[in-house]
Amino acid sequence: MTKKHDPKPECVGRVRAVVDAVRPSVDGGRFAVKRIVGDEMVVDADCFTDSHDVLRVMLRWRTVGGAKFSEVEMVALGNDVWRGAFTLPTIGRYVYTVIAWVDHFASWRHELVRRVDADDVRVAAQVGAILLDEAATRAPASDRKTLTAGAAKLRQGASDAESDPDLLKNLALDETLTTLALAYPERSLEVAYPVELPLIVDRQRARASSWYEMFPRSAAAEPGRHGSFADVETRLPYIAELGFDVLYFPPIHPVGRVRRKGKNNALLAEATDVGSPWAIGADEGGHTAILPELGTAADFRHLVAMASNLGIDIALDIAFQCAPDHPWVKEHPNWFRTRPDGSVQYAENPPKKYQDIYPFNFETDDWIGLWEALKGVFEYWIGEGVTIFRVDNPHTKPFSFWEWVIRELKCEHPQLIFLAEAFTRPKVMHRLAKLGYTQSYTYFTWRNTKRELIEYFTELSQGSGREYFRPNVWPNTPDILHEQLHGGRRPVYVARLVLAATLAASYGIYGPVYELLEGTPREAASEEYRDSEKYQLRHWTLDDAGSLRGLIARINRIRRENPALQHDWNLVFCGTDNDQLIAYAKQTGDNVIVTVVNLDPNHVQSGWVDLDPHAFGVDESAQYQMHDLLTDKRFLWQGRHNFVMLDPALVPAHVMRLRRRVRSERDFDYFL
Amino acid sequence: MTKKHDPKPECVGRVRAVVDAVRPSVDGGRFAVKRIVGDEMVVDADCFTDSHDVLRVMLRWRTVGGAKFSEVEMVALGNDVWRGAFTLPTIGRYVYTVIAWVDHFASWRHELVRRVDADDVRVAAQVGAILLDEAATRAPASDRKTLTAGAAKLRQGASDAESDPDLLKNLALDETLTTLALAYPERSLEVAYPVELPLIVDRQRARASSWYEMFPRSAAAEPGRHGSFADVETRLPYIAELGFDVLYFPPIHPVGRVRRKGKNNALLAEATDVGSPWAIGADEGGHTAILPELGTAADFRHLVAMASNLGIDIALDIAFQCAPDHPWVKEHPNWFRTRPDGSVQYAENPPKKYQDIYPFNFETDDWIGLWEALKGVFEYWIGEGVTIFRVDNPHTKPFSFWEWVIRELKCEHPQLIFLAEAFTRPKVMHRLAKLGYTQSYTYFTWRNTKRELIEYFTELSQGSGREYFRPNVWPNTPDILHEQLHGGRRPVYVARLVLAATLAASYGIYGPVYELLEGTPREAASEEYRDSEKYQLRHWTLDDAGSLRGLIARINRIRRENPALQHDWNLVFCGTDNDQLIAYAKQTGDNVIVTVVNLDPNHVQSGWVDLDPHAFGVDESAQYQMHDLLTDKRFLWQGRHNFVMLDPALVPAHVMRLRRRVRSERDFDYFL
Repeated sequence: MTKKHDPKPECVGRVRAVVDAVRPSVDGGRFAVKRIVGDEMVVDADCFTDSHDVLRVMLRWRTVGGAKFSEVEMVALGNDVWRGAFTLPTIGRYVYTVIAWVDHFASWRHELVRRVDADDVRVAAQVGAILLDEAATRAPASDRKTLTAGAAKLRQGASDAESDPDLLKNLALDETLTTLALAYPERSLEVAYPVELPLIVDRQRARASSWYEMFPRSAAAEPGRHGSFADVETRLPYIAELGFDVLYFPPIHPVGRVRRKGKNNALLAEATDVGSPWAIGADEGGHTAILPELGTAADFRHLVAMASNLGIDIALDIAFQCAPDHPWVKEHPNWFRTRPDGSVQYAENPPKKYQDIYPFNFETDDWIGLWEALKGVFEYWIGEGVTIFRVDNPHTKPFSFWEWVIRELKCEHPQLIFLAEAFTRPKVMHRLAKLGYTQSYTYFTWRNTKRELIEYFTELSQGSGREYFRPNVWPNTPDILHEQLHGGRRPVYVARLVLAATLAASYGIYGPVYELLEGTPREAASEEYRDSEKYQLRHWTLDDAGSLRGLIARINRIRRENPALQHDWNLVFCGTDNDQLIAYAKQTGDNVIVTVVNLDPNHVQSGWVDLDPHAFGVDESAQYQMHDLLTDKRFLWQGRHNFVMLDPALVPAHVMRLRRRVRSERDFDYFL
Repeated sequence: MTKKHDPKPECVGRVRAVVDAVRPSVDGGRFAVKRIVGDEMVVDADCFTDSHDVLRVMLRWRTVGGAKFSEVEMVALGNDVWRGAFTLPTIGRYVYTVIAWVDHFASWRHELVRRVDADDVRVAAQVGAILLDEAATRAPASDRKTLTAGAAKLRQGASDAESDPDLLKNLALDETLTTLALAYPERSLEVAYPVELPLIVDRQRARASSWYEMFPRSAAAEPGRHGSFADVETRLPYIAELGFDVLYFPPIHPVGRVRRKGKNNALLAEATDVGSPWAIGADEGGHTAILPELGTAADFRHLVAMASNLGIDIALDIAFQCAPDHPWVKEHPNWFRTRPDGSVQYAENPPKKYQDIYPFNFETDDWIGLWEALKGVFEYWIGEGVTIFRVDNPHTKPFSFWEWVIRELKCEHPQLIFLAEAFTRPKVMHRLAKLGYTQSYTYFTWRNTKRELIEYFTELSQGSGREYFRPNVWPNTPDILHEQLHGGRRPVYVARLVLAATLAASYGIYGPVYELLEGTPREAASEEYRDSEKYQLRHWTLDDAGSLRGLIARINRIRRENPALQHDWNLVFCGTDNDQLIAYAKQTGDNVIVTVVNLDPNHVQSGWVDLDPHAFGVDESAQYQMHDLLTDKRFLWQGRHNFVMLDPALVPAHVMRLRRRVRSERDFDYFL
């Protein structure tokens, strides 16, 4: 297919510009790069031509479906690298590419500057006159006259063998003429990078978000009662006080009764057991129904609206699997595998069996019906006001399904955010992020030492995957009570919270167990909570004196007030001379946050932190203030090495804003 | 376009395998990877599927134009990386890709192994029977029977509620049945990597070659006479004694008379001046003619044949530019630019002018005629027996022309070798290598310190560019007499020769100036030779006592006898504790060569060389012999650190073959 900007076939051999390696790109354009609305999109390309002629290079972009390309001229950075940038005005899907051509006018001018021989200047002036006349034919009437007049003047000067070559040269190099001639270039031999690279632009919360996960059924004010959406509404001020902006619920659908699991994952449930919300579907309905105990669709919509008033998005859990009594099992038997005995194939990973869960058979002949039905689940909840989905185990469903469904849905609803809950092998996690997931769970939970954290967050923030993989880091989830959290030691909970909230722009906790320091595992070496809410109702005393709620509220306020913490790519680790002290800085514009965490929950740790004050606009000899936003203490630092001491019994971390002196030696910005 | 291996449209949603990141590849398949005939082509890919099902993955390849794909099964290396390999039987152009599918039989077997419950085993046996029956339908009659019988046996065992599950499991896991069932897989849902990656397979000399450049016109036995092809024939035994396998001539065409340059590039030639061979074309003819003084076409063919008898390829210089009196200037005025005064545009880089050279205007409307004529130049000389071309300044002609002409020519003549003489910016050099040049000149000439050499050769041998960029390194050329070579100091010439010949699989020298230590620059800071052969005849005394001919002959024999020196990728630098001592090892199979060079031409240098004997199959505690192939001296080394001392006044380098003990403590292989 000939694209509009391709040269005509009879001209292809005359094309001399080369555009190579346009970046960023993901797998050569197979997948989209991701950005946030308002971001400056910076694009580099390797562009060159044979010989010494001068190139002009354009960065070109449009929204998908948008008719018109916009263009901005790129500039040469040296070593044949060209750079251009544009600001992303709206959310949605874009494409961009790079165009280049050998510019005869610019080449002529580049040579003319260096000409010294009088005859050469005269010949060059004649050539210039021709080029200006040509530019005039491409210009509108208003500019045509100026160009033609310029050409005539050059021609006249060139024809006079007595004319001063320096004057003639100045005439030819005239700035006004140059600007005009460059504005109407001859582009018939331009070449485009062969790929239009895709770009997805998301809303702000796709990059920076603070998640709170809770089980609505445990939200009742009094112990023993099944919680409801109304109870969650009562809880909203608390969530808002904590400062979270995404409130995420495990599945809210009817829970299967057949082979329902009991407390602590017991194989047989008792009559009063509420079962696992991930065993979705019963007589009352499936993925688009609500468990009656939680409330009605109207209750849900009311809750979504109330949360929205507080700036909180409700995120739903999408788990594409069915309890044996899910209506689809009877309505669409061909969406499941049948065993030779005629029974439906349950989930298994031999020798383990999960007989309360039926996975879908994505190899079904009716895959189109299945895909449409699953898409319909999203569409239903979008209709109910939900724009954020946390998807359960996406890596156990086909990649092509996710690519299709996320693209289709975001095409209609570009504000959607999809978080992939895939705790699996790295390439699988990256594939899910590439094919469209907005955010991804990470290995943060299992990265605990200084070295592990530095390695992993360097990869996340600096590796090539950052173009599409946006981390969302969690110290705990209902499935992962890390060994470090066993026993509920406060310094560990605080340190892990501070790390999550300051290392990553998006993080979350599963509460209220987290703020209440709940840390009892089902068995000693287990990552499962004992008496987990996954299988039973719990009741929580939110105003417990030991709760971290105050600290969490402060951390989230710090995140909101400091743009540096709303980005991932700006992370720079600082050296320390103590392996228990991890330190890192983040800078966005004027805002600089330096975090130091004591990873040892048992002992006071102290040491020297390396920081290059130059990188933050502070002179090496100047003092600067480090304002600890956690404790409101202020420290005066100077130079590259400064001392830190952190007592886990008090607060095991500094989250410090660097404040510079301004204007005069007595004029600190922190006096303002 | 639907490819043969794509699933049918009605099935695309059922495909669950993913093939990603097939490598090696150059720019996602835009350009070809390069290999040598007989090489093992190793291909990796990231392949995975949703869930725990088992994949099977095939590496598939064919020659371009070949009808049939070959396939070899790939194996999982862990972390979702799969690897396959095949040996390259012939030179030419290939494509390869990777295919994967979720294999139901292999998945079933994988699960069965872990099953323990007797009922589960019985159900699994029933499923297995179905899968075996299905495999039978895809098998030829001979195997069908075995599969069907196996299925029946399984079915029978499964139907007997009293059957021993362990026996049933063994029956189901039967090796013969497994092998058969895997041989006839169900592949309707296979998926192919979307790109068929191109691969160019060259002859051996494309990777390892030793070049000798000489001016035929200076080959006369007696001073003052214009040399001829017959004189070069007389010189052939000398070249063969030196051990070179490519003999390269500057252009052999009629030299322009209009604006001919004089000795030392004088603007005006004297009547007797022979001019620059790069000013191509005169009344006698152009790019397909031979300068009459050199001989006839028959003489040339005779020379090519005589060289061939000695294992030497003649390489010609292809310089696409014309002297003002080249016949094409009159025949095809539209292949050149015309200045406003009607004269032809000469080459210039203001304020410099090269009025003896007319460049082609590749933007001409008759670009097709021009391209065909230039291709015809290659074809003419191919007809005369030439298969190696050194192309002059390819970066001043359009990249698209080279991509077309090299592809077209190698399609007909896959044995061709093209060496790009592009001393220019890195991305331009890489582009030329990507688009088809077989070998490339490098920056070696300007890399002289230990650090520079290690950095540059690490990039060349380990960087991603090695898939397409084959270095050919030259200590000198007629255009580059590096400052280090000024004054003709023997230790420098020896050191640079040893470095070139052992760091790179392809290297060359411009002689006889090199072996005769000629090193007088035109001016002090110039890289031009004084009285350069580029502009005048020279006469050389080849049997000069100071000549390096013996050393060169030895170096080239070492290169021929040691496969390790015929590869680039096997280069490993060794630490030394002396910045004047550079050391590196190369290993191919059993052959290990360790080179140490003293970079200081003025002083004896000594130090300790780090070498990991394990990497070469030698136990840390064992002694091993280092046999210096330059001097025939033998050293006993042990462990990781060994002492070296090199006197520039003698030989400033060791080129040592590592020889291991074998079998017993008194049984060294070097006793054999």
